[in-house]
Amino acid sequence: MKPESSRRVYDGRLFDVFVERWGEYEREIVDHPGAVAVVAIDREGMLTLVRQRREAVRQELVELPAGTLEPGEEPLECARRELLEETGLRGGRWRQIGVFYTTPGFCRERMHVFVADDLERGEASPEADERLEVVRWPALPSAPIS
Amino acid sequence: MKPESSRRVYDGRLFDVFVERWGEYEREIVDHPGAVAVVAIDREGMLTLVRQRREAVRQELVELPAGTLEPGEEPLECARRELLEETGLRGGRWRQIGVFYTTPGFCRERMHVFVADDLERGEASPEADERLEVVRWPALPSAPIS
Repeated sequence: MKPESSRRVYDGRLFDVFVERWGEYEREIVDHPGAVAVVAIDREGMLTLVRQRREAVRQELVELPAGTLEPGEEPLECARRELLEETGLRGGRWRQIGVFYTTPGFCRERMHVFVADDLERGEASPEADERLEVVRWPALPSAPIS
Repeated sequence: MKPESSRRVYDGRLFDVFVERWGEYEREIVDHPGAVAVVAIDREGMLTLVRQRREAVRQELVELPAGTLEPGEEPLECARRELLEETGLRGGRWRQIGVFYTTPGFCRERMHVFVADDLERGEASPEADERLEVVRWPALPSAPIS
C-alpha cells in the first residue's frame, strides 16, 4: 500500500514530517529511522537503567538504555553500541525479544527490544548532548511465564 | 525545566513540531495532545481489538481500541468515546492501569491505558477516515501476577 502523493513538510535532523494523500484523506506522518532498547543484566545480577533528561516531556525519566538506528545499521549492532556508550556494559549473551511500533497512528518508528545478560562492566562514553546517570536495580530471578 | 527558546517549525492538524534550544543543544519535538488505549472485554468474555489500516507504517495492524484526546477532554471520557465509536461497546466497569510516554526522546504523546470489562455490545460508528474491523479474541481467565 502506498499514498497517491507525499510531500515533505519538515526536514529535520532526527526525523522528517510528510503529509500524504490516501484517497479522500490526508495523513501527517513522522518519518523516524527506528530505535533499539535493551533489558541489560550484568554479571553482578543488576538490571541497568539510565536516568536522563527528556526535554520533550520536561522531566527526567528512568528508562531502558536505548538509542536511534544510524543509516544502514543493524538493530543488534546499534543495541550493542548504544549500551556500551550509555552504560559501559559489553560482552554478554544477547537475544531479541520483540519489535513494535511506538505510535503507529502517525509515526514510522519501529522499536527493536533486546535482552542481554552476563554483561561486563566498563567505562561509559555518552554523547555530548546526553546527560545520563546509570541506575542499577537488582534483577529478580526469572520465572517462567505460563 | 524549560527551553531557552522554542520555535514552531510545523503547524499540523494532529501534531505540531518545535525546535527548542536547551543550552548548547537543539531538540526537535513532536507536540501531540496525548492518547488513550483500552483493554476491552465484553459480557461474552471476548477481548475486543481493531484491525485498521495504518498508513504511517504501510500495514494493517491489529491493536487495542485507541484514540487521540480532544482539547480539554479527560482521558477516561476519551477512552469511553473512542471505544464506543470504534467497537460499539458501552457500559462496563473501568479502571486505569497505567500511563506512559510512547517515545519520549522526541515526542510529548502520553498514552493512558484502561481496562474495561462487563461491556455491552452495540453499533460501532467509526469516523469517516477510519477503516476499522472489529476483531474478537477469547479473553483468558486472569491469573494473579506474582
